[in-house]
Amino acid sequence: MATHRFAPTGYHNVIGSLSPALHVADGDIVVTETLDAAGHDKDNIQRAPRGNPMNGPIFVEGAEPGDSLKVEILGMVPTRDTGFTGSVLASNVVDPRDVRGLPERANAIWRIDREALTARLLEPVAGLEDLTLPLSPMIGCFGVAPSLGQAISTATSGEFGGNMDYRLLGPGTTIWFPVSAHGALFFLGDCHAVQGDGEIVGTGIETTFEVTVRLSVEKNRMIVWPRGETADDIFTIGNARPLDQALQHATSEMLRWLGSDYGLDKTAASHLLGQVVRYDVGNVFDPAYTMACRVSKSWLKRR
Amino acid sequence: MATHRFAPTGYHNVIGSLSPALHVADGDIVVTETLDAAGHDKDNIQRAPRGNPMNGPIFVEGAEPGDSLKVEILGMVPTRDTGFTGSVLASNVVDPRDVRGLPERANAIWRIDREALTARLLEPVAGLEDLTLPLSPMIGCFGVAPSLGQAISTATSGEFGGNMDYRLLGPGTTIWFPVSAHGALFFLGDCHAVQGDGEIVGTGIETTFEVTVRLSVEKNRMIVWPRGETADDIFTIGNARPLDQALQHATSEMLRWLGSDYGLDKTAASHLLGQVVRYDVGNVFDPAYTMACRVSKSWLKRR
Amino acid sequence: MATHRFAPTGYHNVIGSLSPALHVADGDIVVTETLDAAGHDKDNIQRAPRGNPMNGPIFVEGAEPGDSLKVEILGMVPTRDTGFTGSVLASNVVDPRDVRGLPERANAIWRIDREALTARLLEPVAGLEDLTLPLSPMIGCFGVAPSLGQAISTATSGEFGGNMDYRLLGPGTTIWFPVSAHGALFFLGDCHAVQGDGEIVGTGIETTFEVTVRLSVEKNRMIVWPRGETADDIFTIGNARPLDQALQHATSEMLRWLGSDYGLDKTAASHLLGQVVRYDVGNVFDPAYTMACRVSKSWLKRR
Amino acid sequence: MATHRFAPTGYHNVIGSLSPALHVADGDIVVTETLDAAGHDKDNIQRAPRGNPMNGPIFVEGAEPGDSLKVEILGMVPTRDTGFTGSVLASNVVDPRDVRGLPERANAIWRIDREALTARLLEPVAGLEDLTLPLSPMIGCFGVAPSLGQAISTATSGEFGGNMDYRLLGPGTTIWFPVSAHGALFFLGDCHAVQGDGEIVGTGIETTFEVTVRLSVEKNRMIVWPRGETADDIFTIGNARPLDQALQHATSEMLRWLGSDYGLDKTAASHLLGQVVRYDVGNVFDPAYTMACRVSKSWLKRR
Repeated sequence: MATHRFAPTGYHNVIGSLSPALHVADGDIVVTETLDAAGHDKDNIQRAPRGNPMNGPIFVEGAEPGDSLKVEILGMVPTRDTGFTGSVLASNVVDPRDVRGLPERANAIWRIDREALTARLLEPVAGLEDLTLPLSPMIGCFGVAPSLGQAISTATSGEFGGNMDYRLLGPGTTIWFPVSAHGALFFLGDCHAVQGDGEIVGTGIETTFEVTVRLSVEKNRMIVWPRGETADDIFTIGNARPLDQALQHATSEMLRWLGSDYGLDKTAASHLLGQVVRYDVGNVFDPAYTMACRVSKSWLKRR
Repeated sequence: MATHRFAPTGYHNVIGSLSPALHVADGDIVVTETLDAAGHDKDNIQRAPRGNPMNGPIFVEGAEPGDSLKVEILGMVPTRDTGFTGSVLASNVVDPRDVRGLPERANAIWRIDREALTARLLEPVAGLEDLTLPLSPMIGCFGVAPSLGQAISTATSGEFGGNMDYRLLGPGTTIWFPVSAHGALFFLGDCHAVQGDGEIVGTGIETTFEVTVRLSVEKNRMIVWPRGETADDIFTIGNARPLDQALQHATSEMLRWLGSDYGLDKTAASHLLGQVVRYDVGNVFDPAYTMACRVSKSWLKRR
Repeated sequence: MATHRFAPTGYHNVIGSLSPALHVADGDIVVTETLDAAGHDKDNIQRAPRGNPMNGPIFVEGAEPGDSLKVEILGMVPTRDTGFTGSVLASNVVDPRDVRGLPERANAIWRIDREALTARLLEPVAGLEDLTLPLSPMIGCFGVAPSLGQAISTATSGEFGGNMDYRLLGPGTTIWFPVSAHGALFFLGDCHAVQGDGEIVGTGIETTFEVTVRLSVEKNRMIVWPRGETADDIFTIGNARPLDQALQHATSEMLRWLGSDYGLDKTAASHLLGQVVRYDVGNVFDPAYTMACRVSKSWLKRR
Repeated sequence: MATHRFAPTGYHNVIGSLSPALHVADGDIVVTETLDAAGHDKDNIQRAPRGNPMNGPIFVEGAEPGDSLKVEILGMVPTRDTGFTGSVLASNVVDPRDVRGLPERANAIWRIDREALTARLLEPVAGLEDLTLPLSPMIGCFGVAPSLGQAISTATSGEFGGNMDYRLLGPGTTIWFPVSAHGALFFLGDCHAVQGDGEIVGTGIETTFEVTVRLSVEKNRMIVWPRGETADDIFTIGNARPLDQALQHATSEMLRWLGSDYGLDKTAASHLLGQVVRYDVGNVFDPAYTMACRVSKSWLKRR
């Protein structure tokens, strides 16, 4: 199991069947520095066009369509002292009649304290003078090449992953993506220091990170939507609009998972989910919204 | 501040401008026993037609349109040793293509241990032999008479409250409803011993409770959607379909609340919500879905 | 078959189980003058609060739950020389990002020529100097008391009908509503001289009419959603949000109708609908949207 | 203005920035034979994988990002005596509770009479023995390479066009696509002999055609969504889920068009659209649904 330091020479604003920038073996570790969502690096120099430029693709040996790519998020270290956020709620997350009353969008800068692991607004905002947020790093956008040789904008998401902006996708979490291309072709970027549910100002605190992931192939583990696991929970992710449909995808995927790995037929799974399921909202800003279906591992026995 | 023991002589399957069954003063406490969602009482005798029969309406003196009715949930004591649940996921919470593969719906019975405060399936289900759920009581359906003299089925919800099925609406929580009728006309019922997010099998563990609430009038506190408070959080509730719209209503209401009571203009509120908001899914089974917008009180200073 | 001239002494902003204002026999004709959506009569005098005040309820003898009420729209004669419209697209029918660019809403007045049966804007608008619209009268809001004794705002719609704002609901059209209350309890009002699909400025040309309808009971004709018939077509109506769900309701109802009355099982109905169905958009302004599923009678043979 | 007979040597199941298969000059005519949606040619031989294989891409000289590609559909001649359809309504177009009652999907074959220009089911279906449908050819899927070098499955649609399945996209219609790539890179395929609104059985009558189009570049005509024109109407197209959002996109695009080309500011456009707009439903089967916003040219004066 090798560890690769991956320093991209180019970035991509799509996730798709592009020429690999790195080849790794099954189980290898990759350490790489990501740009922020606007394409700036840790020195605030523009290295790529805005819109979630990705590091990748990383070709994982042995990965073929029908497999799953297991991505363990081993670490995320912030590499810059500033991050930026949108300053106003997105027009699609308030009542349409209230849109006119929203101020114009601007960018706000946050000071990131990399020792204390906190973030504060650089310019004081009335009422938030004391606001100091603990960092809670997460990967906003990552995934594998979608089916059919598609290449899809990093502004959106799908079965292949993409711009999901789900809070739990940080260090300690493992996520599985359905492999659709030879070598899986993994991409990542768009990391956030902090983010509320929904990414409702159109951003988290957007900054640069050094990210460490381990990439492994699970052969013939056919999944439809991304699946994940934290210390406490398992979860599945649906990406679609409206949220209702994202919730349907995530729930259907959980039903499949509970059936294949936890010995619960559809009735048993219904009993369990009906009384213990938790739904988490990922992105409600992008063309596809994200909903996670989550179950505490305390209720489950893996077969 | 009197305490009323309210033993209804009739029940209602709507929330609306009906003849009051009880008059209370501002700040009074009401103790009442609720039927289960199917209309059965603590002795399993059918007392009302199925479909969330309500205790009420309770006329609260001094409540007028433009006020808010504050409902403190002081206690919920289960009064029966059994509860029932639907046995299969609702057809609207899975991928439409997966509906055909779901089993037919039946009712399952749960044994409620009122000493240990736990629930277990009465008939064993493969894979769930050890499942013992701690009770987490909540009120599924409550609210006040809607505007215009409307009377609306307890199968759904709206600005006035109704069948929201939100997990946090249990003991220790306070909720405010917008008053639209003289005396507010408060109803409650449909209590659950346990329920996952979304009420995705169409029920929580449906059983009977003795519920204790305090009802107070907040004069001229004009709100549009229900607001609530727990020990840790404040939240607002939107009821609509799709979930996207419920989320919009809840977010707009939170924006109003942060502005009026916490000194945050729309930019400040956007900064805060963008990085700390939590969304919780209530009902995704009924005609109107429910979404809560929740903020930790640790970030807020009430003016 | 009697003809009743119905001159209401009061109006209602809900459709529900209220005290009948008129009793008619099965098959009787009713002639009545409606207020405009803002509650003004033909002399522009405010007679009722704004929000689609209804004439009714009309108790139809013999109508019981499980029956259908057949409403033949025999005539609509405009009774005023003016109508009003909203002046700007509703904020929910444009991209949320475009809402800020819309002007503020105002009312515009239209001159109705009751001889020529046309309408023109009273104040000239640049680019529309020559716009003369032929009248195409329709009933915006009508229906029967909903189930469970509910009373529902005339701002919205449901299985019982309500504020559907569907262009084809004018003279020559017949519509059936599912009866849920003793006597059906029929209401009507909110008539439009002209209206585009969707009622996307929040109004049609809102004015007053003398409306003539025949009300008949079809015993034991159990329907779920409104059904209709014009000279050329049959149609079903779904009312819900999002439009996707309204379309589902309307399609399911058409499937039932083709099965029971036209001898088409679900496969045959699918073949036919798949290649000839037309969908029409009713209201996309109100809490529930309206979609009609329409089939040309040229493809159908009634059994 | 040359005419090119384009006989593809390969087909694509995505629309994107692929290597051009043909170069044409601005204003040239292309004649090409399309496969059916399942990849079969006029001799029923499989030539490409199923899923709307496309002819293309066609590089149009002079087309650059910021331009529009004008596509005039000059002719569509059916080239096979059979077409196929799905035999049952898609599970997403009926009430979720009705899905279980639908039969299993199969393919049905239709006999196409290329002299009479009609289609009939090959195997008799009870109740449809006399059903003979006049052909109404249309292009189900066409468009130009999307932005950012994306390549997107022909199962869906977006600003760039794609699988819109809108009935009016047949001979005599002109459509404009927003150019995002050097040379526009035009694709077409998936033609239907007949199709109802919504493509609600998942297909029209899928068969092969010889299609003739003229491709022209309109320099610096920046559009966001496809626009079209028939003999009688102009229309704009939105592609998204839910239908509500597709309707928003189409309406916003029509507002832009009426402003730039017809001298109507937002108030004037609102007045006109409010009373005369028509909405047509394209695809409600695919990941993105399609809604057209249509206005009769009789109301418009081009500047």
